[in-house]
Amino acid sequence: MPETGPQNPSLLRLRLVLGDRVLMGPGKAQLLDLIRETGSISAAGRAMSMSYKRAWSLVDEMNAGFSEPLVESTRGGPGGGGARITEAGEAVLHHYRGLIEAAQSGGAADLAAIEGRLARVVSDEK
Amino acid sequence: MPETGPQNPSLLRLRLVLGDRVLMGPGKAQLLDLIRETGSISAAGRAMSMSYKRAWSLVDEMNAGFSEPLVESTRGGPGGGGARITEAGEAVLHHYRGLIEAAQSGGAADLAAIEGRLARVVSDEK
Repeated sequence: MPETGPQNPSLLRLRLVLGDRVLMGPGKAQLLDLIRETGSISAAGRAMSMSYKRAWSLVDEMNAGFSEPLVESTRGGPGGGGARITEAGEAVLHHYRGLIEAAQSGGAADLAAIEGRLARVVSDEK
Repeated sequence: MPETGPQNPSLLRLRLVLGDRVLMGPGKAQLLDLIRETGSISAAGRAMSMSYKRAWSLVDEMNAGFSEPLVESTRGGPGGGGARITEAGEAVLHHYRGLIEAAQSGGAADLAAIEGRLARVVSDEK
């Protein structure tokens, strides 16, 4: 059996790309989860070791790509800003994860075949 | 209907990632196709507007990730080097594309739902 290890539940990473813009991907999906959890874009970004600016930029990219914003927010100010995932945001996340599940279930044999060909010893040293 | 346009047959991009290393993805798969076509890593790289060094680096990454090399080559020299896709390379490509098909067929409804929420007017100006 290949040693893909417990930290590697799946090799699969899925992105939704339009032209040169990534509309959704593993990082953006995690950011949405964390915004839902924390109610704050900057707190969500911090949880991903991401700058305030970077987190906002990812949210802006997502919001610009869809007909309705995925995240609604009030920017900073003395009391701090709040943020929430919209119905559109929840729907896009849901369908993004549906796609991943479709690839993992329908493509299970392909994924297993590839995993069986991975190098057995993978050095993480650099 | 969303205007995804003829240049956007699918939003879907799929990568196979181990740790921080991309073992296979759209660019590497295209490079393999072009190596098969041209019999040369540098010619394949040129066809993708990629430097000789970059093309070799992608091949080295792929070869290091699997138990058998995906590309066999003889490096440059006066007569130029030749390269071919190995049986392992063809198998990995085949199963990578099987995964994409699984996501696109099994996830067709999810993909359509996301496409239905794309911004209708996408500006490519910058």
